[in-house]
Amino acid sequence: MHLRHLPIALAIVISLLALPTAADTTKPTPTAKELIAKSKPEEWRTPDPANLLYMQLPQGRVVIELAPDFTPLHAANIRTLVHEHYFDGLAIIRVQDNFVTQWGDPNDDDNGDKSKIKPLGSAKAKLPPEYTRAIDSKLPWTPLPDGDVYAPQVGFTEGFPAARDPATGREWLTHCYGMVGVARDIAPDSGNGNSLYAVIGQAPRGLDRNLAIAGRVIEGMPYLSGLPRGTGPLGFYTQAAQRLPIISVTLASDLPPAEREKLQVLRTDSSTFAAIIEAKRNRRDAFYTLPAGKIDVCNIDIPVRTNPP
Amino acid sequence: MHLRHLPIALAIVISLLALPTAADTTKPTPTAKELIAKSKPEEWRTPDPANLLYMQLPQGRVVIELAPDFTPLHAANIRTLVHEHYFDGLAIIRVQDNFVTQWGDPNDDDNGDKSKIKPLGSAKAKLPPEYTRAIDSKLPWTPLPDGDVYAPQVGFTEGFPAARDPATGREWLTHCYGMVGVARDIAPDSGNGNSLYAVIGQAPRGLDRNLAIAGRVIEGMPYLSGLPRGTGPLGFYTQAAQRLPIISVTLASDLPPAEREKLQVLRTDSSTFAAIIEAKRNRRDAFYTLPAGKIDVCNIDIPVRTNPP
Repeated sequence: MHLRHLPIALAIVISLLALPTAADTTKPTPTAKELIAKSKPEEWRTPDPANLLYMQLPQGRVVIELAPDFTPLHAANIRTLVHEHYFDGLAIIRVQDNFVTQWGDPNDDDNGDKSKIKPLGSAKAKLPPEYTRAIDSKLPWTPLPDGDVYAPQVGFTEGFPAARDPATGREWLTHCYGMVGVARDIAPDSGNGNSLYAVIGQAPRGLDRNLAIAGRVIEGMPYLSGLPRGTGPLGFYTQAAQRLPIISVTLASDLPPAEREKLQVLRTDSSTFAAIIEAKRNRRDAFYTLPAGKIDVCNIDIPVRTNPP
Repeated sequence: MHLRHLPIALAIVISLLALPTAADTTKPTPTAKELIAKSKPEEWRTPDPANLLYMQLPQGRVVIELAPDFTPLHAANIRTLVHEHYFDGLAIIRVQDNFVTQWGDPNDDDNGDKSKIKPLGSAKAKLPPEYTRAIDSKLPWTPLPDGDVYAPQVGFTEGFPAARDPATGREWLTHCYGMVGVARDIAPDSGNGNSLYAVIGQAPRGLDRNLAIAGRVIEGMPYLSGLPRGTGPLGFYTQAAQRLPIISVTLASDLPPAEREKLQVLRTDSSTFAAIIEAKRNRRDAFYTLPAGKIDVCNIDIPVRTNPP
């Protein structure tokens, strides 16, 4: 068997590689796929359709799960915008390499035609920041043991990567790959969810606590990350033809159940997720002979499955 | 001035945002652009053309700087391959989302036609693994003060992000965004540089010390990161038509000086680079009201300029 296609991502079938070799003196750590295969049905959650956005792009569908427990006012405003079809016909306006892909109203921008700005309908134009929240000890918290450069504590709660500061009693979602943030102007209350961005590069953790995070892309990230980078300042597309049109953004709860995606997300407070974290921290197999013994909060993919058994 | 295009990447003109506001009670930290504008000529280095690879893709040119002080045998073998035009006509064969873009010989893979594998010419088929090296105290080392999840020490040396372990006396390049690694099979000596990958997502630091890093992309990353993701296992393209052809890979030193890129890289042991690190650690301006006070080794871009004054 030829394996000239390494390195191998952790979420992928490592069994291909688990050939016994001199270097592989220990039993290979299980792969995420192997651990997921042994997971129990109750370890998976079906996201509330009222928190799921289907963003239809020409190439395919992006599914975003909102995080109303962290940003309730933004979630409500985004639901209003989506319910009233605000995003339909808008566009991907910015792709800045190793940073973010952003979408919204092309006219609501420096070079836009202000006379054509799409009205917000019933949605609010301004919202309180919602950058952090008080630590809710009633909610499950799955801490990581290896520390973090940016925060006193990091881990997972309610299916999202997060950070905590016991000294201030605050917690916040972290700007990991695939997290969806709320673009804003200078004023902290100027974000309303009508322009959103997804992280497509190295986690820009310096944004943490400076911007509101609305949720996470749980399906279709390649449709946002694999786009041509904008050549204008900040990665904005300089010509209308470069922008990728948004066909529609729909709230799953606005669709009949039969038309909703059959998606489940592994509970971040499940034993299988804990096992995946441990396997990734200590990955050892025929290929990875030197386990890191550590893991960064932004290096752990939260498993999502479609059409669950 | 309208600024509905936030967040702003740190490397970009923050001056646009440095409007005095109630929240901005302190003098804004300088931007990388502002600091670079005040840099001295001697703070910039012109990479040795013998260490620069020009990879010509249909959309544009990718420039890679080799790191022979870390991986000398791999650098020498890659120079041989490039000098003998090994990569000309090969292809981008794999783009795995949030992981790597990999290029090489499509036939030298599971589904390839083994009878058509391109010969390596004078290059070696196997090389000793050059995953780490003894810490060279004679070389400049710019340490970062905020710790690291994966290594005892992190910083920069000779223009590359790196990590150190004083306990073992070893140092190694870190798998940050844009770093170029050597694909290999299971055997540690099976990598020879004829298949390389560039990191296009969250730094897969678990690869550190398990793979040889040949260098860093210093120009043209968007041509590697903005590609459609492969839909096959591990992000491999499943059809030949999906692969992006490599027109040519040329060693700058094989070109007449007049045909070489006019590129300079900011010295990582320069005071301007130190100032950029500090400004990024403590970024505060009208938009970023809460500085992280910390920085991850993979969150610092090493400035490159073209056609220097």
